[in-house]
Amino acid sequence: MIAPADLIDRLGALVGAAQVLTDADDLPAYRADGRGPAGGVPLAVVRPASADEVSALMRLSAQSGVRIVVQGGRTGLAGAGLASEGDGDLIVNLDRLSRHIAIDPVNRTATVDAGVRLSALNAAAAEHGLFFPIDLGADPSIGGMIAANTGGARLLRYGDVRANLMAIDMVRADEHGTILSLGAPLWKNNTGLDLKQMLVGSGGSTGIVTRATVALQPRPALQMTALVALRDPTAALTLLLALEAGFGTLLSAFEGMSAPAMAAALSHVPGLRAPFADLPPYAVLLELTAGAAFDADLLEERLAVILEPLMDGTDAPVVDVAVDHRDGLWAIRHAIPEGLRASGTVVACDISLRRGDVMRFRADMAARLAVEAPTLQPHDFGHIGDGGLHYNLVWPQAVGPADAAMVERARTLIFDCVVREYGGSFSAEHGVGPRNMAHYLRFVPPDVRRLAGSVQHLMAPVSLGRIDFGRTE
Amino acid sequence: MIAPADLIDRLGALVGAAQVLTDADDLPAYRADGRGPAGGVPLAVVRPASADEVSALMRLSAQSGVRIVVQGGRTGLAGAGLASEGDGDLIVNLDRLSRHIAIDPVNRTATVDAGVRLSALNAAAAEHGLFFPIDLGADPSIGGMIAANTGGARLLRYGDVRANLMAIDMVRADEHGTILSLGAPLWKNNTGLDLKQMLVGSGGSTGIVTRATVALQPRPALQMTALVALRDPTAALTLLLALEAGFGTLLSAFEGMSAPAMAAALSHVPGLRAPFADLPPYAVLLELTAGAAFDADLLEERLAVILEPLMDGTDAPVVDVAVDHRDGLWAIRHAIPEGLRASGTVVACDISLRRGDVMRFRADMAARLAVEAPTLQPHDFGHIGDGGLHYNLVWPQAVGPADAAMVERARTLIFDCVVREYGGSFSAEHGVGPRNMAHYLRFVPPDVRRLAGSVQHLMAPVSLGRIDFGRTE
Repeated sequence: MIAPADLIDRLGALVGAAQVLTDADDLPAYRADGRGPAGGVPLAVVRPASADEVSALMRLSAQSGVRIVVQGGRTGLAGAGLASEGDGDLIVNLDRLSRHIAIDPVNRTATVDAGVRLSALNAAAAEHGLFFPIDLGADPSIGGMIAANTGGARLLRYGDVRANLMAIDMVRADEHGTILSLGAPLWKNNTGLDLKQMLVGSGGSTGIVTRATVALQPRPALQMTALVALRDPTAALTLLLALEAGFGTLLSAFEGMSAPAMAAALSHVPGLRAPFADLPPYAVLLELTAGAAFDADLLEERLAVILEPLMDGTDAPVVDVAVDHRDGLWAIRHAIPEGLRASGTVVACDISLRRGDVMRFRADMAARLAVEAPTLQPHDFGHIGDGGLHYNLVWPQAVGPADAAMVERARTLIFDCVVREYGGSFSAEHGVGPRNMAHYLRFVPPDVRRLAGSVQHLMAPVSLGRIDFGRTE
Repeated sequence: MIAPADLIDRLGALVGAAQVLTDADDLPAYRADGRGPAGGVPLAVVRPASADEVSALMRLSAQSGVRIVVQGGRTGLAGAGLASEGDGDLIVNLDRLSRHIAIDPVNRTATVDAGVRLSALNAAAAEHGLFFPIDLGADPSIGGMIAANTGGARLLRYGDVRANLMAIDMVRADEHGTILSLGAPLWKNNTGLDLKQMLVGSGGSTGIVTRATVALQPRPALQMTALVALRDPTAALTLLLALEAGFGTLLSAFEGMSAPAMAAALSHVPGLRAPFADLPPYAVLLELTAGAAFDADLLEERLAVILEPLMDGTDAPVVDVAVDHRDGLWAIRHAIPEGLRASGTVVACDISLRRGDVMRFRADMAARLAVEAPTLQPHDFGHIGDGGLHYNLVWPQAVGPADAAMVERARTLIFDCVVREYGGSFSAEHGVGPRNMAHYLRFVPPDVRRLAGSVQHLMAPVSLGRIDFGRTE
């Protein structure tokens, strides 16, 4: 064992003393993620700038028994990048591992250091008319995106991080801090077990990604959004299938918004304009994107043809439509989280369902919550085109502090229902971490957890990160 | 140990005696795959019809020490589904595990038994206007497609099997024949390590997939193909980038054909019509597909706009264009393998490169082969839109039997060059099996092989299949 003071010295020797943070003033920034401050006080935060430094840190971790928790852009929502309470974790923050950004415009790939932010990657890709098609509100690091396998609003068309990842360089959590390259910057490559898949969605607990090659897509020359007001939420599915038959892969987003979610955004977020005179019970924000061979008028005209039969008659499922040829209509969708926070205490549930179950689940759950947790108001919204639903509840500010027991009852009811009754997911796009580990333990069967734990231990024989996929209690 | 005769009896007790084939007359059909007859005589071929039967077979394998080789549609090209020479493998053929085909049209998913053929899946999906977008010349089983992670002609737009696989049921290669379900029929689902990834591209050596849920896509209402004659092969990249900028994801295939490959097809395959008066040095077959919101004239008109600047002037890169509003032009592309076989002995290399390297590699390799293996004539073609290249050579029939030494020299030269000099792949879409295991050993680094072997052993503690990913010699 190495004494704590010696350990700090040795860390300084590896990455430079200035990159080893232990002062109480320096730490708060590294003790919060996308859900705010959480977790414990780390032994230190170290900021390596190369894979070799990460490898040296891993060797020191193996020798000293101090566990490393890898940290990216601190935008995660499951808590996987924060120190645990009381364990004296060593946070390895990869912000400085961000110098390398190489775009191959003909191959349509980018090779970037793990600490590079999504915005920086996209800025570099934009110079070649390209973009990385994982669309998120936050600005995570690429390494963090791989660890969480982020999804986002355009998964319907482009898939998740997994589907767009070609290669990684990694440091193994073993006594040597072994550096491995897995995969290649190739669109087609089938040369054995694809081991890098075990890093994707791992919450940083199976190895440390130091560099990645990802697929890029042509930036669409045209973007058109439409906000469609529905008489009845179930009409969203009819609309989705009609759009997919008509536009195929030009449909790049299909977002649902409940009336309470829209109302919260419009009431609390300045500068938003109400899109309709009367707020409908449900609205869909759809996005069409196309290449330079098309033009905006054409898309609008063809959309009108698809919508026409849905707007015909007094009981027609589509009540109203607003169209925009930029991304203006996204504003109301993006404002929902802020609107909800301003309305009260938010209980957030990142779930997904088979697409055909989304509306049935909403109705079912609203009825049950009205009985079991009547103060909590459903304010759901999300990526319903891919079955993803932010089934968020609000405890209204006016009622006073939230009743913890009712909140817990509601959470249990929602997750039990989505997983056990509907066969849905307790984590659609936020991944697994300390914040939802209890769900993992409840819903992932023991034999799957045992196998996952064995794979994790094989990938990372030295304990790494906050997650034990093999936990049995 | 169990005596061989007893083993046959016990197999019969598990799946019915009629489903245990040992007669010399019955076996040849199970001793050939997409490349023809190969491999050794199996102890028996058994044809289970349920996951429970597969599980029972696995338990018997664990008890008896008889190794199982899983076999799907026998269309593979790497030999992973055939019995080894002399080892007395038990072939478990999954043709009869093919009763369950369930389409969820709203979710756009299909859940099918592993032995279901691609054509049967697509027939069921077509009733709902959907299809499974992995486009292959062969008609493999879904289990085989997962084991090989097949790519095909439309990977550019839809990705490989991995990108379209949501869930599997599997039988583990352990003493209990443990049945596991991994994943869910959900587009977004991030609930821990995605263990099913270790079955994808495994060549059937990490477990036995018995059922799978895959993503479906809307069948495009419109299809348009164009055959573009190029003055110079390098113009293909210019054309590709122009099409991607113009049409985005409506570009669903981009296939390259060398002049010798086209000439072989036209000379030897009856019923083909020469698309151009003079055969160009290189041609690209491009496919655009779109939903019902568009029409064929529009696509053709917009394609003309993109091609116009490339056809301008006497030295213009594009020499000629033929357009078809069905898939008629695919005929020449699909006829190439047959044309090559009729021309002589084919040396097939399924490689891939970064897209920008494809044409440079072709020129480089042709020059080297002219020196090192002058009798072998490059007849390359393939999915150059995704960097995939069937870099096939023909030993002309007229010259007599192929010189094995020259063939071997050519193979070594090609694979060394593509992997070591260009950073490309020795198996783009055919996967790994006995036929290319030597390349796996040469090109996959020892530390990656060691880790892969450990993962394989963890997934399948009972020896399964033809591939040892951990092989060191």
